[in-house]
Amino acid sequence: MTTEKKETDNTVFIGNKPFMNYATGVTMQFNKGAETVIVKARGKFISKGVDVAEVARRKFLADKNVTVENVTIGSEEFENKEGKMVNVSVISITLKKN
Amino acid sequence: MTTEKKETDNTVFIGNKPFMNYATGVTMQFNKGAETVIVKARGKFISKGVDVAEVARRKFLADKNVTVENVTIGSEEFENKEGKMVNVSVISITLKKN
Repeated sequence: MTTEKKETDNTVFIGNKPFMNYATGVTMQFNKGAETVIVKARGKFISKGVDVAEVARRKFLADKNVTVENVTIGSEEFENKEGKMVNVSVISITLKKN
Repeated sequence: MTTEKKETDNTVFIGNKPFMNYATGVTMQFNKGAETVIVKARGKFISKGVDVAEVARRKFLADKNVTVENVTIGSEEFENKEGKMVNVSVISITLKKN
């Protein structure tokens, strides 16, 4: 008997691509049957991440009653090009189909 | 007998001013005795708001054990200069001294 590990691959990482790529990415995850989708962003992409989550939820998924289940923020340390350790803020937004 | 309404004026709205104005603003609220401080930001200022909350909490208030109590996101509708109703994303970050 194996314990089926329900790994959710339903995470959308926000980056340099056009806004709509991410908003449709989130929408498609729900349309494929995902119960939750997590939007993650770092640094300057955090504003875009919140916009993506809100637009996908309110516009594209208006018929699906998707709510913001949880939002967390934090900091991650990484080594920059000069070899110096720097901090970057991160956000994780969990959207849930009800 | 009056019910004393504990209106918290401990809200810091993020805008165009330098980053440090807001980070020190949050820090000063706690140093003046606030139990909680709320950081609010809209649109493109959301990333800055998360940075302000994280830097104030982790650097300036490192000795005070301030944690992120709650984060909410949402959308607000407003009328732009052309008289059109548009949506803007908002974030509200509640920091708490423990």
